[in-house]
Amino acid sequence: MSRPSAPANPRIPPGVVAPTDYEALARERLDPAAWAYFSGGAADELTLRRNRAAWEAWSLQPRVLRQLAGGHTRVELLGRTLAHPLLLAPIAYQRLAHADGEIGSACAAAAQEAGIVLSVQASTRMEDVARAVQPEAGRGPLWLQLYLQPDRGHTLELLRRAEAAGYEAIVLTVDAPTSGARDRERRAGYRLPPGIAAVNLAGMPQPAAVASVPGGSALFDGLLHAAPTWDDVAWLRSQTALPLLLKGVLHPDDARQAAALGVAGLVVSNHGGRTLDTAVSTAWALPRIREAVGDALPLLVDGGIRRGTDVLKAIALGARAVLVGRPYIHALAVAGALGVAHVLRLLRDELEIAMALTGCATLAEVTPELLVREMPGA
Amino acid sequence: MSRPSAPANPRIPPGVVAPTDYEALARERLDPAAWAYFSGGAADELTLRRNRAAWEAWSLQPRVLRQLAGGHTRVELLGRTLAHPLLLAPIAYQRLAHADGEIGSACAAAAQEAGIVLSVQASTRMEDVARAVQPEAGRGPLWLQLYLQPDRGHTLELLRRAEAAGYEAIVLTVDAPTSGARDRERRAGYRLPPGIAAVNLAGMPQPAAVASVPGGSALFDGLLHAAPTWDDVAWLRSQTALPLLLKGVLHPDDARQAAALGVAGLVVSNHGGRTLDTAVSTAWALPRIREAVGDALPLLVDGGIRRGTDVLKAIALGARAVLVGRPYIHALAVAGALGVAHVLRLLRDELEIAMALTGCATLAEVTPELLVREMPGA
Amino acid sequence: MSRPSAPANPRIPPGVVAPTDYEALARERLDPAAWAYFSGGAADELTLRRNRAAWEAWSLQPRVLRQLAGGHTRVELLGRTLAHPLLLAPIAYQRLAHADGEIGSACAAAAQEAGIVLSVQASTRMEDVARAVQPEAGRGPLWLQLYLQPDRGHTLELLRRAEAAGYEAIVLTVDAPTSGARDRERRAGYRLPPGIAAVNLAGMPQPAAVASVPGGSALFDGLLHAAPTWDDVAWLRSQTALPLLLKGVLHPDDARQAAALGVAGLVVSNHGGRTLDTAVSTAWALPRIREAVGDALPLLVDGGIRRGTDVLKAIALGARAVLVGRPYIHALAVAGALGVAHVLRLLRDELEIAMALTGCATLAEVTPELLVREMPGA
Amino acid sequence: MSRPSAPANPRIPPGVVAPTDYEALARERLDPAAWAYFSGGAADELTLRRNRAAWEAWSLQPRVLRQLAGGHTRVELLGRTLAHPLLLAPIAYQRLAHADGEIGSACAAAAQEAGIVLSVQASTRMEDVARAVQPEAGRGPLWLQLYLQPDRGHTLELLRRAEAAGYEAIVLTVDAPTSGARDRERRAGYRLPPGIAAVNLAGMPQPAAVASVPGGSALFDGLLHAAPTWDDVAWLRSQTALPLLLKGVLHPDDARQAAALGVAGLVVSNHGGRTLDTAVSTAWALPRIREAVGDALPLLVDGGIRRGTDVLKAIALGARAVLVGRPYIHALAVAGALGVAHVLRLLRDELEIAMALTGCATLAEVTPELLVREMPGA
Repeated sequence: MSRPSAPANPRIPPGVVAPTDYEALARERLDPAAWAYFSGGAADELTLRRNRAAWEAWSLQPRVLRQLAGGHTRVELLGRTLAHPLLLAPIAYQRLAHADGEIGSACAAAAQEAGIVLSVQASTRMEDVARAVQPEAGRGPLWLQLYLQPDRGHTLELLRRAEAAGYEAIVLTVDAPTSGARDRERRAGYRLPPGIAAVNLAGMPQPAAVASVPGGSALFDGLLHAAPTWDDVAWLRSQTALPLLLKGVLHPDDARQAAALGVAGLVVSNHGGRTLDTAVSTAWALPRIREAVGDALPLLVDGGIRRGTDVLKAIALGARAVLVGRPYIHALAVAGALGVAHVLRLLRDELEIAMALTGCATLAEVTPELLVREMPGA
Repeated sequence: MSRPSAPANPRIPPGVVAPTDYEALARERLDPAAWAYFSGGAADELTLRRNRAAWEAWSLQPRVLRQLAGGHTRVELLGRTLAHPLLLAPIAYQRLAHADGEIGSACAAAAQEAGIVLSVQASTRMEDVARAVQPEAGRGPLWLQLYLQPDRGHTLELLRRAEAAGYEAIVLTVDAPTSGARDRERRAGYRLPPGIAAVNLAGMPQPAAVASVPGGSALFDGLLHAAPTWDDVAWLRSQTALPLLLKGVLHPDDARQAAALGVAGLVVSNHGGRTLDTAVSTAWALPRIREAVGDALPLLVDGGIRRGTDVLKAIALGARAVLVGRPYIHALAVAGALGVAHVLRLLRDELEIAMALTGCATLAEVTPELLVREMPGA
Repeated sequence: MSRPSAPANPRIPPGVVAPTDYEALARERLDPAAWAYFSGGAADELTLRRNRAAWEAWSLQPRVLRQLAGGHTRVELLGRTLAHPLLLAPIAYQRLAHADGEIGSACAAAAQEAGIVLSVQASTRMEDVARAVQPEAGRGPLWLQLYLQPDRGHTLELLRRAEAAGYEAIVLTVDAPTSGARDRERRAGYRLPPGIAAVNLAGMPQPAAVASVPGGSALFDGLLHAAPTWDDVAWLRSQTALPLLLKGVLHPDDARQAAALGVAGLVVSNHGGRTLDTAVSTAWALPRIREAVGDALPLLVDGGIRRGTDVLKAIALGARAVLVGRPYIHALAVAGALGVAHVLRLLRDELEIAMALTGCATLAEVTPELLVREMPGA
Repeated sequence: MSRPSAPANPRIPPGVVAPTDYEALARERLDPAAWAYFSGGAADELTLRRNRAAWEAWSLQPRVLRQLAGGHTRVELLGRTLAHPLLLAPIAYQRLAHADGEIGSACAAAAQEAGIVLSVQASTRMEDVARAVQPEAGRGPLWLQLYLQPDRGHTLELLRRAEAAGYEAIVLTVDAPTSGARDRERRAGYRLPPGIAAVNLAGMPQPAAVASVPGGSALFDGLLHAAPTWDDVAWLRSQTALPLLLKGVLHPDDARQAAALGVAGLVVSNHGGRTLDTAVSTAWALPRIREAVGDALPLLVDGGIRRGTDVLKAIALGARAVLVGRPYIHALAVAGALGVAHVLRLLRDELEIAMALTGCATLAEVTPELLVREMPGA
């Protein structure tokens, strides 16, 4: 499906000046099914669009003539000082986008001091990714995203491998007890091509829906028997000294419950609009969750982050850092690791511009007072 | 007008993955006038569009990590336990869409355990439909939709036939004392083709507008003399032991009055946007009617239900069950009974996915707290 | 510019089923400049569009099963009982649209028992129009729209002619001390063709803007010296026994002042969006003016009335009757007098349908309780 | 890039009847890069569009029959009585648009009694511009826009030249410590052609971003060290007797601080949407700043002013005068100085029409009571 054999042409295409400029190019470069897989969302893709619209709907009320000398984008996260608050969101099967695959993305992130959240469904072994980005090189955080496996032994196995390979935190995805209605993917006939697989899960059977029978429930009689619960989170938490973050939390009560369980952080996420269509946008949920959990618990957010001003708004609404998804997978598809590095650089530059133009020398000065809801519905 | 003689090709067309995917195919398959009849709405079709927009305007705020094992979609309705809350809305002249006609739809519903509300303007005799779906086969409810006839004797005749044929409830449509301004239909020159007729009403004269004369009122001097009133409802209620539901109620005061008359339930409906254009959307009216009548009276709703998330939202807003209309008539037009069964299966699967992704193991857990109005006007 | 010599083909074109269906046909029939003149609005035409949007933005919450027998559309207005609340709005130069001109429109209105407000800029002498529609024939009200002339003597002359010819009321337009920025007209190069003129104003010099000079104000140094004031209204009121209505009032304070001066009624109007662009829509202003002046003073409204439901909403918001503009001039352009009669019949039928479907047997039952603002901005 | 050698054809093109009518023509006339430079905004151009939308979103509720005789558009500003409240906004490199350049614009403004704010990045020496528009000719105010230079000596040099040349006020731009993300410009490959330069800054080195290095911050380690602060404003204020205005203030607190520093006025501006994308619209910020600083301090506003009604709304929301930008640069590109004069005349005429149609004889009568927010989000 992908064209991994295409000659590597690791140059930034002319005319790419903004993080989203890779999107149209990726659409040309990828085959339609891979495009549908990486870019599509659930059902009518309303949440996919609303994620974007929700960041745009906030206006900025800038301050002028403030002291900007000595400013920076540094942020503290899980005991580390990061150069900036950008991480790569977990995306599966990146070798489908480009032969550079997950190693390309990770190296690009490291070069830009960005964090990496590797998907457990990566098409590259987690050990190989970790080896490619040694901590000495000044990279950002290296985390592993995890789904709870039907067999706890398999989950533990993944956990131990992550610990051994040097992953610094576990990000447990909790918003997908089943896949969403990925209509665009299904219409495009998406299937993994030979040679690309979730290699980290090799040998671990995945839950499958029971074939529907008259009178039967495809889901409730099938895979939902194994759907993860809070008990599973508590269990996982007890099995490792690594910080545990939950990804996919949108409700303040769930955020409070997670905090009570001692998680190290939350990723406010609707899975990039890929699971429950018409789920609330993350920009809507973020400040409500920040209010619910107080100031201490680190929150990250993803979904629709496309501009430096979006990052600034996320910080203002309570995020410590943000995860970027589609922009980097599009850049990977177009220009491999170099594209990913370029997108990160563009976002980082735009964040600095946004800080300067709103009068914020540091992210600590990026507060909700910067934000204005100018016109309802506009 | 229809092409009932086209060779039956009862296969699901490739690429149909969502309930609305039959729509474009039906438009190709049907002749323009039949398409206009089944798909059109009144006047500028604002209510037609707003029904849809009103479901979309609600956002879902999902819960995670809840217990989903043992979940199901069952619901109690008029003394029966239904496998799920989906019913086929009454649509007239279904043989105009496909040779399978009402019997095809009813059999498909039965196969999917869905309820059926047969239109009194069906192009198939009600007895034939009832005979095709014997209760032993595990079908959902079998109800008859009725218009009050100008002659009460005719109404009673229909009622007795329904009782004798095994219909379990009567759904009296109350929102159409006259037809709406069906401009799309009229522009398309819609007329019933030979061989398709409201066979259940054979021999029963229908009210007609008096020909307009200078100074005369086409409606008030004509058919509105026979427009049904609350007295007629009370009379009908007294004539049968079958549960009586009113369809087309949008105002809380009318809902209260109906409840006081002892109706068994209400269908919150604007006739699919086919009568009064700019009538409120059903998603707007539903919670207000639920609030007016309290928790006991069963409410159903139709209008714009196209996704499993719509069904979930309807339940959250107070519906016990929903009626689906255009999606199944489009599927019938494209693939006959098989198409109808497919649409019902898709909706049911999507409902289960939506429940799983919002953390609801049963419909009792589907409450208004799931719903959020994210942005005014968005 | 117009094609008055085209052979009269007074048939309703096929496919015209709604009042706005004449619009596209009129665009084809009229030359571009005449089309721009009749259909255009001021500047960016925002008010033109908002008039329409404002009626659409109200949703109807219908009642069911009410007594409709004996219903009618009659209304009392200035001492007469009208068959229905529709009047033709004053539109200048109707012979530019069709050879039937103002006499065609007036005869059509008479045939449909609609009122007529003749523009003082008519291309037909007011006496000729009045002669064509004798009161014995059962026509609706016959009123004359007036602009105050720079010379009071000329104004009195027009008034006396109107009295003599049998006009029943004077409608003084007060919202146009100068023309608006009619960009569409000007781009189309609109000019009156030979043979079409404001014949009722023959010999009466009209105010003209002073040619602009460096440092000079085109308007304030020119025609605004003669702009009408409240004193002029009081003077006009004192000169005639005919009822005097003011057209173009949008502010409650102005409405109160007019009421205090003893006017017989107000037309809530923004000149069909042809003068001040971004002026409030009439559907917005109407209920505020109704509230300001209490229940007694008759209010009429125009601007964007295209459907029977719009008429119903206008009545619900406090109007006693409505003026229809562009729909009838488009119909005149397409099918002459017959077209105008057809549009009036369509609107009247739609009004009856809307009454029946909302449960209103008479206009007295059409109250604000029918109206709902469903979604802000939607 | 521009075609300054094209034969001067100083005629108003047919069909230009509104201030924005030059836009499409300018797009044809300019080369794509120059077009992108003059017309583009930052990033996704949301603020560019919202500036426009924000003026449109206000509706006008006009008054009728008021005394208009003796009206005028005069306004007091910094000790002068201006014929009307229009000034040309500072735009750099105007010889890129047309050979007439800044002198053409300034002469046109003088002919129309409009004010001029010359950009310090003008492609013409400020002395030459001042010489072209002697005060005796009845021109409006002549002001100089300034950026603080990295070297205070250079700033002083510019100040002294402005004083000597007869500039009446200094407008210090404070909203651009760095350029915005001008994606459209960059995609178009915009660069200054030979022969066009910021001649007033010749010999003054401009700040440059440090080349980004791994781990480095392009902005914070670079040009932001020299970003202007309130101290610089106080210093500049102390160096000249000329009135000092700040341009680019959007926050009430900044406005208060500026007032406390003794500035002579503020320009509420978001740099025409060219710096911080999603910054609040100026129509939103203006009344909040007026409220913060009270009635005394003169406020000007720019951004999206395209119609006389926009000017009227700006005055109603608290502006003493307005700056017009893109409309005049487009007119300059199309028809040189004559085009600029024409646009100013059109705006001035439209302002007078808007005053007459809202019942305002003078700008003092233009108050917030004229404004209505008709529909949220509409």
